[in-house]
Amino acid sequence: MFQTRLLDIQKAVQSALDIAVARQPEGPLRAPMHYALQGGKRLRAFLVLESAALYDLPQAQAMPAASAVEALHAFSLVHDDLPCMDDDDLRRGQPTIHVKWDDATAVLAGDALQTLAFELCCDPVLGPPERRIALVEALAKASGAAGMCHGQALDIAAESATTPLSLEQIIDLQAGKTGALISFSARSGAILAGADQSALRAYAEALGLAFQIVDDILDVTGDEAATGKRVGKDADAGKATFVSLLGLDGAQARAAELIETAQDALSGYGARAQNLRDAAQFVISRKT
Amino acid sequence: MFQTRLLDIQKAVQSALDIAVARQPEGPLRAPMHYALQGGKRLRAFLVLESAALYDLPQAQAMPAASAVEALHAFSLVHDDLPCMDDDDLRRGQPTIHVKWDDATAVLAGDALQTLAFELCCDPVLGPPERRIALVEALAKASGAAGMCHGQALDIAAESATTPLSLEQIIDLQAGKTGALISFSARSGAILAGADQSALRAYAEALGLAFQIVDDILDVTGDEAATGKRVGKDADAGKATFVSLLGLDGAQARAAELIETAQDALSGYGARAQNLRDAAQFVISRKT
Repeated sequence: MFQTRLLDIQKAVQSALDIAVARQPEGPLRAPMHYALQGGKRLRAFLVLESAALYDLPQAQAMPAASAVEALHAFSLVHDDLPCMDDDDLRRGQPTIHVKWDDATAVLAGDALQTLAFELCCDPVLGPPERRIALVEALAKASGAAGMCHGQALDIAAESATTPLSLEQIIDLQAGKTGALISFSARSGAILAGADQSALRAYAEALGLAFQIVDDILDVTGDEAATGKRVGKDADAGKATFVSLLGLDGAQARAAELIETAQDALSGYGARAQNLRDAAQFVISRKT
Repeated sequence: MFQTRLLDIQKAVQSALDIAVARQPEGPLRAPMHYALQGGKRLRAFLVLESAALYDLPQAQAMPAASAVEALHAFSLVHDDLPCMDDDDLRRGQPTIHVKWDDATAVLAGDALQTLAFELCCDPVLGPPERRIALVEALAKASGAAGMCHGQALDIAAESATTPLSLEQIIDLQAGKTGALISFSARSGAILAGADQSALRAYAEALGLAFQIVDDILDVTGDEAATGKRVGKDADAGKATFVSLLGLDGAQARAAELIETAQDALSGYGARAQNLRDAAQFVISRKT
């Protein structure tokens, strides 16, 4: 059920993103934007659409929000991969944008993908203006100096720090770098419905942290061919990670605990939240 | 009158931007964001506030839109100055962000400034949700692959092109690079009032083109101390500019014509548009 649903969502979101890029005017940024939006697990889009389903919002209505979150995620990857940042030449098994094009194109395509994310949140199909502006505001909080960009800046700073980060600092870093956007995704159904976000916020907070712990585990145990990105980078760089701080077993135990917390947070939604519970299970068992 | 009004706006916008940055959480991006938002002519903020005044919108109501446009402008400057883009080490007479900090900080602070611009457009003081979402949508169109980023990508591509651009291509490039945001600024009063934007659009289109022609003129005739940036760069790089295509006299005549067109477009607003007419005059007579 979960895998089928995820596959369906991957196809539907890819199609929505391809249409959104095709609507952009012809020019040097359309091809790299399109390229940056291919593939990926689409976990964030899944969270958007499943949280919308909790409030009986049809997939077609929530799709621009799902596309927006994937566009924002793609923007962050394109910039994070830049030589002046994480300097990655491989992403989802393919050359990164600055390798396939050049640095300037990667900066500008990333910039335009961030813009696209906000533009998508304006789509009237999402609902009345007050819901759309609430979505824009939540997305802005997830993206900028209070969210993703903040987390990435902390991550870059950590690389040149003389002492490795503490567990508390790593949790703070990840809350920005990956947690903020996962939280936005899981809350977006409640935002679009004008409903209380606290249960979905608690779910997302635990899920986001588990997600990052699993990322750190995969950086140690993962397979380059399966993950589609270079592995062992963090250990090579001497960076503090959840694995270096908690040990491999400790990190796995912590992730498992968090997944349980995430699933428990959804109890008020009953059976209709089963796909979101399964998503939490997926996060801890994923190999890529 | 115009100079006094511009000075007043410069102070008010600076204060609003300083407050907006101070509200961001502590972290590595706050200082570079604050730095990137210092100084500048604030012509775009002026256009926002004066177009709002045409519709009796008080300055305090339109201020978040004026701040948003300056944040978006600052974002574009920080990224344009990067070594992989225009590679400028001086901006407004001060070291650029990647010089004072590093490239990664410049990328991330620019990213967070774009986010801040969209966040500012959500401020309830701007008016009802339908007006704010219209503002977000217009800002997105001015920023991304249909606006500023598109223009900058064309500019970068032109640098490695084997033949210089034609006049038509340069006009297309500038319509994105500077025109789109100037147009947004001038139209924002009408957007916030839910009014017809066509007169302000015509004004802004002529003004934006004149602005870029004057930029090209100043790159030839300007004084580095006064402009606060390196001059003669375009000529040194063998780039086609309005001056190289029209000659210095031809460029000056074209700019003067456009200023007249811009001023004429405001005739329907009568005397209350005098500050916007004076702004057009300022654009052609400016030395920086």
